[in-house]
Amino acid sequence: MTRDEITQQIIAARLAKGLTWQQLADAVDRPVVWTTAALLGQHPIPPEIGTVLAALLDLDDAAVNVLAAVPMRGGFDAAVPTDPTVYRFYEALSVYGGAIKEIIHEQFGDGIMSAINFSVNVEKKPHPGGDRVVVTLDGKFLSYEWNQATE
Amino acid sequence: MTRDEITQQIIAARLAKGLTWQQLADAVDRPVVWTTAALLGQHPIPPEIGTVLAALLDLDDAAVNVLAAVPMRGGFDAAVPTDPTVYRFYEALSVYGGAIKEIIHEQFGDGIMSAINFSVNVEKKPHPGGDRVVVTLDGKFLSYEWNQATE
Amino acid sequence: MTRDEITQQIIAARLAKGLTWQQLADAVDRPVVWTTAALLGQHPIPPEIGTVLAALLDLDDAAVNVLAAVPMRGGFDAAVPTDPTVYRFYEALSVYGGAIKEIIHEQFGDGIMSAINFSVNVEKKPHPGGDRVVVTLDGKFLSYEWNQATE
Amino acid sequence: MTRDEITQQIIAARLAKGLTWQQLADAVDRPVVWTTAALLGQHPIPPEIGTVLAALLDLDDAAVNVLAAVPMRGGFDAAVPTDPTVYRFYEALSVYGGAIKEIIHEQFGDGIMSAINFSVNVEKKPHPGGDRVVVTLDGKFLSYEWNQATE
Amino acid sequence: MTRDEITQQIIAARLAKGLTWQQLADAVDRPVVWTTAALLGQHPIPPEIGTVLAALLDLDDAAVNVLAAVPMRGGFDAAVPTDPTVYRFYEALSVYGGAIKEIIHEQFGDGIMSAINFSVNVEKKPHPGGDRVVVTLDGKFLSYEWNQATE
Amino acid sequence: MTRDEITQQIIAARLAKGLTWQQLADAVDRPVVWTTAALLGQHPIPPEIGTVLAALLDLDDAAVNVLAAVPMRGGFDAAVPTDPTVYRFYEALSVYGGAIKEIIHEQFGDGIMSAINFSVNVEKKPHPGGDRVVVTLDGKFLSYEWNQATE
Amino acid sequence: MTRDEITQQIIAARLAKGLTWQQLADAVDRPVVWTTAALLGQHPIPPEIGTVLAALLDLDDAAVNVLAAVPMRGGFDAAVPTDPTVYRFYEALSVYGGAIKEIIHEQFGDGIMSAINFSVNVEKKPHPGGDRVVVTLDGKFLSYEWNQATE
Amino acid sequence: MTRDEITQQIIAARLAKGLTWQQLADAVDRPVVWTTAALLGQHPIPPEIGTVLAALLDLDDAAVNVLAAVPMRGGFDAAVPTDPTVYRFYEALSVYGGAIKEIIHEQFGDGIMSAINFSVNVEKKPHPGGDRVVVTLDGKFLSYEWNQATE
Amino acid sequence: MTRDEITQQIIAARLAKGLTWQQLADAVDRPVVWTTAALLGQHPIPPEIGTVLAALLDLDDAAVNVLAAVPMRGGFDAAVPTDPTVYRFYEALSVYGGAIKEIIHEQFGDGIMSAINFSVNVEKKPHPGGDRVVVTLDGKFLSYEWNQATE
Amino acid sequence: MTRDEITQQIIAARLAKGLTWQQLADAVDRPVVWTTAALLGQHPIPPEIGTVLAALLDLDDAAVNVLAAVPMRGGFDAAVPTDPTVYRFYEALSVYGGAIKEIIHEQFGDGIMSAINFSVNVEKKPHPGGDRVVVTLDGKFLSYEWNQATE
Repeated sequence: MTRDEITQQIIAARLAKGLTWQQLADAVDRPVVWTTAALLGQHPIPPEIGTVLAALLDLDDAAVNVLAAVPMRGGFDAAVPTDPTVYRFYEALSVYGGAIKEIIHEQFGDGIMSAINFSVNVEKKPHPGGDRVVVTLDGKFLSYEWNQATE
Repeated sequence: MTRDEITQQIIAARLAKGLTWQQLADAVDRPVVWTTAALLGQHPIPPEIGTVLAALLDLDDAAVNVLAAVPMRGGFDAAVPTDPTVYRFYEALSVYGGAIKEIIHEQFGDGIMSAINFSVNVEKKPHPGGDRVVVTLDGKFLSYEWNQATE
Repeated sequence: MTRDEITQQIIAARLAKGLTWQQLADAVDRPVVWTTAALLGQHPIPPEIGTVLAALLDLDDAAVNVLAAVPMRGGFDAAVPTDPTVYRFYEALSVYGGAIKEIIHEQFGDGIMSAINFSVNVEKKPHPGGDRVVVTLDGKFLSYEWNQATE
Repeated sequence: MTRDEITQQIIAARLAKGLTWQQLADAVDRPVVWTTAALLGQHPIPPEIGTVLAALLDLDDAAVNVLAAVPMRGGFDAAVPTDPTVYRFYEALSVYGGAIKEIIHEQFGDGIMSAINFSVNVEKKPHPGGDRVVVTLDGKFLSYEWNQATE
Repeated sequence: MTRDEITQQIIAARLAKGLTWQQLADAVDRPVVWTTAALLGQHPIPPEIGTVLAALLDLDDAAVNVLAAVPMRGGFDAAVPTDPTVYRFYEALSVYGGAIKEIIHEQFGDGIMSAINFSVNVEKKPHPGGDRVVVTLDGKFLSYEWNQATE
Repeated sequence: MTRDEITQQIIAARLAKGLTWQQLADAVDRPVVWTTAALLGQHPIPPEIGTVLAALLDLDDAAVNVLAAVPMRGGFDAAVPTDPTVYRFYEALSVYGGAIKEIIHEQFGDGIMSAINFSVNVEKKPHPGGDRVVVTLDGKFLSYEWNQATE
Repeated sequence: MTRDEITQQIIAARLAKGLTWQQLADAVDRPVVWTTAALLGQHPIPPEIGTVLAALLDLDDAAVNVLAAVPMRGGFDAAVPTDPTVYRFYEALSVYGGAIKEIIHEQFGDGIMSAINFSVNVEKKPHPGGDRVVVTLDGKFLSYEWNQATE
Repeated sequence: MTRDEITQQIIAARLAKGLTWQQLADAVDRPVVWTTAALLGQHPIPPEIGTVLAALLDLDDAAVNVLAAVPMRGGFDAAVPTDPTVYRFYEALSVYGGAIKEIIHEQFGDGIMSAINFSVNVEKKPHPGGDRVVVTLDGKFLSYEWNQATE
Repeated sequence: MTRDEITQQIIAARLAKGLTWQQLADAVDRPVVWTTAALLGQHPIPPEIGTVLAALLDLDDAAVNVLAAVPMRGGFDAAVPTDPTVYRFYEALSVYGGAIKEIIHEQFGDGIMSAINFSVNVEKKPHPGGDRVVVTLDGKFLSYEWNQATE
Repeated sequence: MTRDEITQQIIAARLAKGLTWQQLADAVDRPVVWTTAALLGQHPIPPEIGTVLAALLDLDDAAVNVLAAVPMRGGFDAAVPTDPTVYRFYEALSVYGGAIKEIIHEQFGDGIMSAINFSVNVEKKPHPGGDRVVVTLDGKFLSYEWNQATE
């Protein structure tokens, strides 16, 4: 039983049981984006949380150990995503990526936004011209530093 | 004089004159991410704004017309960006893209976040563990609709 | 039971039963291109429609829930399609894509044709030199606008 | 002087002179999409038309011969276009390509829409929800036939 | 039962029964290259022919319907074929493709050789230096024409 | 002066002087496909022929030596050609390549059609349905043989 | 039973039985590189040899017919091999390929080393600095010749 | 003056002066494949040898320092070489690479043929069926060993 | 039973039994990186070690022979790894690879760090700013030498 | 004057002046790998250091500003490096990357080695079997943490 096989089971079971991602997140009291990403195979799931989710989704007990292991991350089949909902984020990066880089350097100096010490939030917000999807990427700034271990 | 050549001149002139992207944005009273993206070749620049920027950056007058035309957008040389500051956004999409898609569908139904009716904001925010880069992607929700022109 | 597996079953069942795509579309009173795309895995199918189609095609009841979920869209195995009937559209885009972009900008300003608020029609039309395939792509114009959610 | 170099000159000259693609098309009495595609390097331009266009755009006389030769067609730098306005057509093909293929075969039998005996039209059409871009692809149906030359 | 699965069965059955492609073609009175391409999954096979071939190759009756449907064509796993016998044709195109294009335009004007109204023949011909493989590609010339459907 | 630069000069000079490929081939009494391929950079051109062609096309004398050297062959910029006239040959290989391989093995045994001891011919032939492009690929059969040098 | 499946069985059976490639080659009195390549799916195996090998490796009788058919050759999963032992040959070609081409042309004229009328030998040879792997590639020189079939 | 520019000058100068690679190798008393590879930019050339070659080829004195530096090696523009003379070696690796790997392991154990402690030889050898190109790849066997530096 | 299948079994069994890689390495008294790489399919495992590991992980006895064979190495599914933990090493190579090459040549002369006579060590080391991952790559220097086997 | 052009000037000037990377690093009292990477275009160079280096290498004064800007990092032309000295590191990652990931997770938990808070060291160390290249990658461990900015 590999992590990929368990992910397939989770996807099927969620639909069969009519559970929302939010309900699954609430059941384990974790943020919904984190929970969804984890259930889609992108994060290890601590055993105490995995046990609850496995019960809700009727997964085999042996799945809990596999869910708890750090997975091989990375969710694209191809270098460029083809699903339109996902592609728009890739396109935004293609159009604004250079500008975001310049602004980060101007505001913070040389470095990056961490994608590890990081969270994502998705919100529905009103606008006279129609509801808006607001996605917040929030990562620690890491400055380029040339450090070495001390002994 | 192609748009690409003008973009190279802008990059060189900004460094030579010691101007920040924020100063350029303030001079034309536009958001800094928009201004930076536009100066990097990703948006047409209206002539009245282009004239101000061309003066600040000592561009040739003929550049104003070219800056005003809609460019071929898309700023990557390769399908996967190699610069670490840019790559982290690609990686975040690789890890969280599937979850973001699911949450958008759960909150809004079938559709996408527009990358056209859209804005990006980059902010520096405090945190006890160190300053954070907060990037907000804010796009109109577009639901999948099967419409046809009326005559 | 994944969406891909159901798509394979649909393709096989349609041939075995000798049903046309038009007959399937008529049975649910939806446009034939939309119905075909949906049955090929590119759109969610509302349960009341999915139930009818599942019955016509002898699909398992559990398929209705899976058909109702928003799928991962994108129908190519490769970046460039190899089937000649499909490739001609890719070729037309390769030859006329630049011109279409210029004309859209000249007629509408900066923006895009939406592929979400969008419909496709395929018609057989006469011509002295032989019947013609007329494919109409009809999408809402979306202008580039820098908007933000209001609170 | 290669065709690519002439295409660059045409793009620059059009902007410098403030000519629209429609004006150029009207000057030679040809459809605007054809004229634009041809000026962007995708079609040979007959000398009598090339002479008019070269005069309007101040091209060198020697350009007329080069414009009259059949070019190496194909306007993408990459297999997948990155400009958002162009990409939407690629995406529409990715989502609807399979369905279009099935409908063509159901309506016409085995064969293709020609991209050679072919025309494209771009129109702005009204809709209560906002103007629409309507792109019509109109190609002769070619049925798969196993023929051989006669002597 | 997909077309790919049937193709695998055909390949295995032909070897097990020791039938030549020529024998199969003769049994249905069609050209051998067409028959082989069709059995390898590249053409629909009309039911009256499919019935004969299915009987010869002990295929399931249900295969006849699937064989009769227009398949997704395109026989390479990779963009560049690796089998030496197939690669030589790709290489010939790489070395002579530009010349063939020029000669077609010089002899016929702007247009293409159709790969749809088309036949292929493979012959063994003598030569003092050793037998030669003579492959004849024979397609209708299609000139670039800007036509539109009439109503 | 590289071979690529000379090829560009040849292409420009031929158009400027209004010479056909056939006229160039006739001037040196070689087949037209060979001559065209050679002038497009795919074959070395013996000095006595190169001298005649250089004179006809006003090339620099130093070009003759470069034309006489064996070039790096291979005329595609990309693995898959995008020009429609060239692409049709690639497509024919994609659809019929597997069948051609099988027929070669059935008629000749294990081996290949040489693309080195090889010629190509392009002919215009009549047909009631319209003129046809007939391209003949004619290569020596080479059987797979496990031989070793003798000393 | 496809050739690929038989190849997998051969690989497993050889290890289970503890047979060396040399023993298998000796059993059929063929060169060891040829035998190994053939058993790995790169050559047809004549029935009289296939029968012996199938017996040694406990293959199904039906395998003999499949082994006797000309396979789709080409043993890489990717365009660039990743296994270090195989990669070194690719690297040697990357570094010395241009030089080998020049020397072949200088010694033989325009043409190639055949990879069809060809043999490979691998030998272990002594050297004061350590044993050496000596791989000899031995192919017939084929000169570029423009020949045509005679009738 | 980069190494690539010097390589282009070498290629042009050799043809202009009518020097063979063998003559250049003899002038510096080094093997011809090594000398050719080095002149094509794949090896550093010691100053005392570089001085002789620069004089023979009329290179600028400053070239000697650049030739003496270790270059970025790797001579392909694409992952798969397109020139037929070079491609045959790639094809041989594709067909025989797996077998060569197995034989190296059977004869030597786990390890590789070094491509660094390595030489290549190209010879013309007779055969009743025609001259043969014999290319010998001769590299030190390196066994996989898990060693660490000592202090 | 292929090596890939055994690797999947090892991954599952280790998680099910709650064994650490360090425990497995200690059980066979080998370095932990070597042991982990070997169990992940990158090294042959000598039978005496394989027997111990197979017992610990409840593998089938027949696995020991397969584990002892030299595998096809190379652990990426794609040319560029997508898992963030693995990608950082690729990124470090992208940023520092050129510099490492220059320093190796400056300190050692022309040559490479062997990846065959080689070891890797991973250590956790303290630092006031947080623990550090210290990965030591330790390979024998191999100088470019043009040697040949002696007879 | 772009950063890439300055990098080319640095490479040429260093060879012309016979300066080592170590001498350049010593002149500015920075680690040699950092200095080399920065001069090869991978790091911004603070103006006080850039002034010293520009003087040593006779760069134009205007280069100092450009060197001080954060560059687009990423030093490969291709996804997979072809230079053998660089490739060995890629190969080591291909063979050991999976194991390194597992060990990092076993020793530190879920997270990565930072490539930003990071240093690289290259050393020459003795060994009875020959000198060894020891490359130490030393990065801060970053654990996956789901944090958000505080306001």
